[in-house]
Amino acid sequence: MSAEISAEQLDEIYAFAIQLGKDAGKMLMDAAAVRISSAPGQGHQAFEDKDNAVDIVTKTDTDVEAFIHSSISKKYPHHKVNTKLIAIWNVSRFIGEETYSAGSSKDYLITPDHPTWCVDPLDGTVNYTHLFPMFCVSIAFIVSGNPVIGVIYAPFLNQLFTSCKGKGAWLNETQSLPLVKAVPIPANAPKGCVFSCEWGKDRRDPGSEKGKGGNLGRKVESFVNMAVEIGGRGGKGGMVHGVRSLGSATLDLAYTAMGAFDIWWEGGCWEWDVAAGIALLQEAGGLVTTANPPSDPVTAEIITDVRLGSRLYLAIRPAGPSASETGRQGQERLVREVWKRVRDLDYTRPGA
Amino acid sequence: MSAEISAEQLDEIYAFAIQLGKDAGKMLMDAAAVRISSAPGQGHQAFEDKDNAVDIVTKTDTDVEAFIHSSISKKYPHHKVNTKLIAIWNVSRFIGEETYSAGSSKDYLITPDHPTWCVDPLDGTVNYTHLFPMFCVSIAFIVSGNPVIGVIYAPFLNQLFTSCKGKGAWLNETQSLPLVKAVPIPANAPKGCVFSCEWGKDRRDPGSEKGKGGNLGRKVESFVNMAVEIGGRGGKGGMVHGVRSLGSATLDLAYTAMGAFDIWWEGGCWEWDVAAGIALLQEAGGLVTTANPPSDPVTAEIITDVRLGSRLYLAIRPAGPSASETGRQGQERLVREVWKRVRDLDYTRPGA
Repeated sequence: MSAEISAEQLDEIYAFAIQLGKDAGKMLMDAAAVRISSAPGQGHQAFEDKDNAVDIVTKTDTDVEAFIHSSISKKYPHHKVNTKLIAIWNVSRFIGEETYSAGSSKDYLITPDHPTWCVDPLDGTVNYTHLFPMFCVSIAFIVSGNPVIGVIYAPFLNQLFTSCKGKGAWLNETQSLPLVKAVPIPANAPKGCVFSCEWGKDRRDPGSEKGKGGNLGRKVESFVNMAVEIGGRGGKGGMVHGVRSLGSATLDLAYTAMGAFDIWWEGGCWEWDVAAGIALLQEAGGLVTTANPPSDPVTAEIITDVRLGSRLYLAIRPAGPSASETGRQGQERLVREVWKRVRDLDYTRPGA
Repeated sequence: MSAEISAEQLDEIYAFAIQLGKDAGKMLMDAAAVRISSAPGQGHQAFEDKDNAVDIVTKTDTDVEAFIHSSISKKYPHHKVNTKLIAIWNVSRFIGEETYSAGSSKDYLITPDHPTWCVDPLDGTVNYTHLFPMFCVSIAFIVSGNPVIGVIYAPFLNQLFTSCKGKGAWLNETQSLPLVKAVPIPANAPKGCVFSCEWGKDRRDPGSEKGKGGNLGRKVESFVNMAVEIGGRGGKGGMVHGVRSLGSATLDLAYTAMGAFDIWWEGGCWEWDVAAGIALLQEAGGLVTTANPPSDPVTAEIITDVRLGSRLYLAIRPAGPSASETGRQGQERLVREVWKRVRDLDYTRPGA
């Protein structure tokens, strides 16, 4: 642990983050209740387009971020959280989706020299807009560049995921994650695995000049490789047990930490989409590395933890040993099996 | 309503079905708790392959069906439910997934002349096997061939969906569905819509001789058409707001009834996968028709309700009027927009 944060301080920050997540989740449900109780035909929430119709910013999103930000500022003024929303990403160590997007730079902002809060007030905004329950608040606390606390609260599902380094990962503060302990990776994985993936916002037609090499075509080819029967697709067929798309990167990671998803593969996420989920998954015993298969087979020999901010993620659930390998060996075997079947995704950081 | 069932009897049957769903859901969670509390490395549930690794039958599935079946037999002996599991589908009017599959015929079994219980003790078996929370009990009561009661309980989500003809559709017995009332279908739908679809069990490689014309290729082409930007795919690009795959046909229908999904499109379902969901969706004001676009444009003029047992489903959420059309007109417009973008699926009834 960083010399700046004592064990007692971390305990207090953890308790504070959990309460913050619960309060923020309640705000999301209160705002939803306004829509639900509105007169017939009047239940739409004002929203504006960002990149395109798929990327919605709701007023609630901004309100909840402001609440979280001011709560942290009040409680931990030494974390130097600035109250001016637009400038937060720049002035303080607080990274929030809405304020970040409004800024002019998209540089990687989590530096190891400051304790950093990394928050998504509302992950799964499309789901929230439609009131599909897979949305959540996501709060991470990062020390020395590593997410050490993760709080994810999906209020419509009454599911709270929490973790603190050394204290385990939990569902609803009572059930430790993964739910079923020490399950080996199947011998013929990815067969038998549940594969979690998202269609994303890059919807360029793979058949058009503009979309050739775009991410949708790369993703679909990868999804189909994972799904097709063994022997199909020139040997790439993975015959996964199921393909799931929830529309929330944070909850994808939470369900991977739970052990419900074996594999989550995605590109294009920002730090706030994944920081709390990575804290949770790593504390539960999961592995997170990069989505893109290394071109150099020597590099691929050593599977390294992903760098927060890379935008490319491959997560494997916690795993126990089998007769022939350790849990970590099983996870690394599965990483390589996924890499055989997926295409490189093209997500760089603007300006990077 | 059938002359055989009075309004008072239906009320009683509805209350009974709700309690039955709650009790069966508790059985699913109790069995899950055994796995969760088992020693590390021992938490796997015994399962056997049916068609392939994607289609798992768990012991719990069979146990819960036996419980539901015996409960109905005891309470309503005049519904002629037989206690011999293997023969139930044949001897009685009780259709259950496990017993049905074990029979030798797959003829359409819901006849209009008997009040019929149509039950899936565990929808989302793959999810249940992995303890991904999207699994449920699904209980429908059918009179004169129409599902009039639907009870869907997802115990890990604490979400209970219930409906009875003329009494509304409900979430957790308190919130009426759809949650937000009278939302028009977007003017430029399917843009703005959440599209729910499943990858399914037919995993033949579309590029192989055997898989040419198989359902996976047809589905993927349809999914991509729905997802791609407007103007893409030769004008078929639908730019839907999101693509979601949960792995449970029943919950797909429940979330469509809730208004969270705008469109659910699927082939290959059996009656027990959809009967309760259709009851719920129709009572909430949704529309269910066939997945496959009619080849005859005249036939397509009149959009008819799907026949339970067709195995091909296209569901549209409840909708309110806009300035220019009724809710039903908006739903029918969306049906035609989906039909423009999807391919025919190939699911016939064995022996049909």
